[in-house]
Amino acid sequence: MAPRPTGIVTLLTDFGTVDPYVGVLKGAVLRANPRAVLVDLGHAVPPQDVQAGAFWMAAAIGRFPAGTVHVGVVDPGVGTPRRLLAVAAGDCFWLAPDNGLLAAVLRHDPDAEVRVLEPAHLGLRDISRTFHGRDVLAPVAGWLGCGRYGFSALGPRVADAERGVDPFAGAPRVVHVDAYGNLVSNVPAARLEGVAAVGVGGRRVRVRGTYAEVPVGELLALVGSYGLLEIAENGGNAANSLGLQRGAPIDLLAG
Amino acid sequence: MAPRPTGIVTLLTDFGTVDPYVGVLKGAVLRANPRAVLVDLGHAVPPQDVQAGAFWMAAAIGRFPAGTVHVGVVDPGVGTPRRLLAVAAGDCFWLAPDNGLLAAVLRHDPDAEVRVLEPAHLGLRDISRTFHGRDVLAPVAGWLGCGRYGFSALGPRVADAERGVDPFAGAPRVVHVDAYGNLVSNVPAARLEGVAAVGVGGRRVRVRGTYAEVPVGELLALVGSYGLLEIAENGGNAANSLGLQRGAPIDLLAG
Amino acid sequence: MAPRPTGIVTLLTDFGTVDPYVGVLKGAVLRANPRAVLVDLGHAVPPQDVQAGAFWMAAAIGRFPAGTVHVGVVDPGVGTPRRLLAVAAGDCFWLAPDNGLLAAVLRHDPDAEVRVLEPAHLGLRDISRTFHGRDVLAPVAGWLGCGRYGFSALGPRVADAERGVDPFAGAPRVVHVDAYGNLVSNVPAARLEGVAAVGVGGRRVRVRGTYAEVPVGELLALVGSYGLLEIAENGGNAANSLGLQRGAPIDLLAG
Repeated sequence: MAPRPTGIVTLLTDFGTVDPYVGVLKGAVLRANPRAVLVDLGHAVPPQDVQAGAFWMAAAIGRFPAGTVHVGVVDPGVGTPRRLLAVAAGDCFWLAPDNGLLAAVLRHDPDAEVRVLEPAHLGLRDISRTFHGRDVLAPVAGWLGCGRYGFSALGPRVADAERGVDPFAGAPRVVHVDAYGNLVSNVPAARLEGVAAVGVGGRRVRVRGTYAEVPVGELLALVGSYGLLEIAENGGNAANSLGLQRGAPIDLLAG
Repeated sequence: MAPRPTGIVTLLTDFGTVDPYVGVLKGAVLRANPRAVLVDLGHAVPPQDVQAGAFWMAAAIGRFPAGTVHVGVVDPGVGTPRRLLAVAAGDCFWLAPDNGLLAAVLRHDPDAEVRVLEPAHLGLRDISRTFHGRDVLAPVAGWLGCGRYGFSALGPRVADAERGVDPFAGAPRVVHVDAYGNLVSNVPAARLEGVAAVGVGGRRVRVRGTYAEVPVGELLALVGSYGLLEIAENGGNAANSLGLQRGAPIDLLAG
Repeated sequence: MAPRPTGIVTLLTDFGTVDPYVGVLKGAVLRANPRAVLVDLGHAVPPQDVQAGAFWMAAAIGRFPAGTVHVGVVDPGVGTPRRLLAVAAGDCFWLAPDNGLLAAVLRHDPDAEVRVLEPAHLGLRDISRTFHGRDVLAPVAGWLGCGRYGFSALGPRVADAERGVDPFAGAPRVVHVDAYGNLVSNVPAARLEGVAAVGVGGRRVRVRGTYAEVPVGELLALVGSYGLLEIAENGGNAANSLGLQRGAPIDLLAG
């Protein structure tokens, strides 16, 4: 059963912040619900990088109050007939193009309820061909929050949503490089039993409990803030030191 | 007639986000109205670039709930006797230095009501010589929203506001380069009848309906999210590919 | 006596905005208090630079409504036994690691009340070893604001908080370079009586009242938005022109 929406709306986009697009998107939410509470999940997804966006969306799972509406706008297919989805998963709502941006969200909740937005039935007109985040997703997010539409009124249920590339599936590898240069892997803490070190970039790096266990300038592997194994450098930038990027393979090594 | 102010306050500045100035500006609004709802329109206007700021301000026209107070702080003349304006235009309020930052706002609503702020009469003291956004505009924005002052109490009406450079007037040209490298022009959709292509940077680029009509890596012209003609590259960066910047001329070509 | 907390929570971190960490931090505050009002003080503190963070925190003193909860997360010692502090100072609350981040806050209010957070007593479980901002400080900030815990219930009072390096003490020097390239000093306006110029980077720069008193491209010294002496260049970037950084010494020169 779908949770009751609150007025909290998070926004994830690839818009950056050197244009007024994010502000305009927020204006569109507020016009639909002047009492909405807006939170930036982030706007630095690399342009049109749906797979990176799916990792960011996953970071919100379980981290916001029940009933939060999460809006994702990484939308290289805007203007084509690709669909827009509304999903009830976990105890939150998720609005995004049907392009794999919700890959982790859909896999995380097997009982997720997926609907296809029908803008015309919702009274939406004057929809541009380039900015469906502003013209469709933002008003729907506002309306969900203020109760103008219930979730099931948004459109018909479907079973064929684009599942995309689950950032957390597949062989151990780097799935995200954060601003500190930490190499975040797809290996959850639970998979580390018996693992004493990792092989990465031709180096053997020991698993530790915390940064402070190694001297400044030394590499370590540890469970980071995502609950995933990360390769880091105490006081430094592991990505630079190792010359590695997203996709780099990781070997899990026993003691 | 002036709309009734809500507590929604948008902020547009050239402060960037590597200083605490924006946070301090928000604190000043909240001290005047603890129930204010703050929205960043943007803080990446190039330092002291009033003309770029006028383009950003224009992006907010019609995009926020009636009664929103829009604050613009791009203020190279701070500390000189330049005036501070309060404007009721469209169904919103606009607070900014009298330097042309409201060029598009004033032209968009010929019935705009323009007043000059009188800080001393409003009880404002301890005004610095370098940060009138924090010391004057922010408290006024908060007070408007909570009803401490009505719009007409802010100061006397004037007819000689600085009109600045309308970003949308004049010959077809690039008026903004967005973060994707799209070259945004001053040509509205309505002016495109009979136009089949544009000449820009020595190239002839066809007008299309959407990105997906051309292969990845190819240039196209289309009506973008601003409702203006843009020159873009599908999956790429048109500004880099063409080596063009703001001000580049554009020719409108018939079929 | 401690002020009554409002739901306003400011956030200062070194997370940058190219990761979802800030969004997740906000989610954690909202889960504790769905009515919290979140304000970014800033997220561009250089990674793990506690001294720079102390300067940013100082910028919030006296700038927000009474009862605001200020959260600072610049935390190189996360995962070590370093303590987390809750401070009532001025008319606001401050939550931060016990590492000197609150240096200016503690010096500014000699009657500051300092407590050590006791996460277990507050019912906090599942605390990661890398992100105490999210797992401890954020929920405590939310709970303070909604009244679930009073300030004095957060933990025992202590007298040995890390005082750190007061950004405003010591010989005249550059303590911050802002985004415009202005060199912000630790010299308050009150200390400028009889000072006609400053010596900096081998240059003699006259003290002025405002930017407009010198031609574009010329250096000047003036009291800036922090209430501190700054060395600036009208229409330019003083840090680049002088080749100076944080720490550069400044001489105060009589007429």
